[in-house]
Amino acid sequence: METQPELQALRDSIDNLDAALVHILAERFKCTQRVGELKARLDLPSSDAARERQQVERLRLLARAANLDPDFAEKFLAFIIKEVIRHHETARVRADSSS
Amino acid sequence: METQPELQALRDSIDNLDAALVHILAERFKCTQRVGELKARLDLPSSDAARERQQVERLRLLARAANLDPDFAEKFLAFIIKEVIRHHETARVRADSSS
Repeated sequence: METQPELQALRDSIDNLDAALVHILAERFKCTQRVGELKARLDLPSSDAARERQQVERLRLLARAANLDPDFAEKFLAFIIKEVIRHHETARVRADSSS
Repeated sequence: METQPELQALRDSIDNLDAALVHILAERFKCTQRVGELKARLDLPSSDAARERQQVERLRLLARAANLDPDFAEKFLAFIIKEVIRHHETARVRADSSS
């Protein structure tokens, strides 16, 4: 069955935006990986509550300005940070088993 | 305490990428809102399993190419789609209560 043209146009936009999201997320994880390595090298604590509070507040403000639900933006950040922690734990297990 | 300059530079990049993510997400929800309205107008079913399978496969391919965990990309899409469904349900409740 052929997709209705207006629906197809919207789906094409969604696909473009999803590709952008995936690429930005890949770049973000490259940054957090380097943060993890840097913190390990400088012997800094892996979590920083003050920094996380700032991130949440900033993202909620940005979300509001972009007409996105601030609660969703906060949930989204928590979702990503959970993955970052998973990466760091995997990296630590690898480092431990190779030492 | 002053943040170590290399850590600060990485955090600045993360903040820029997060702002990009929030704005792309806001645009994506605008698209899915229009999809919801269009489907309601054309009396099309709200979910489309074939389309969702295509989205998952495509996102996993894009993730692999960008060196992002494909399983994470799939979880990420599921996380967003859950929010889209929540939006559609809220819109339906609003439409019902105003009719």
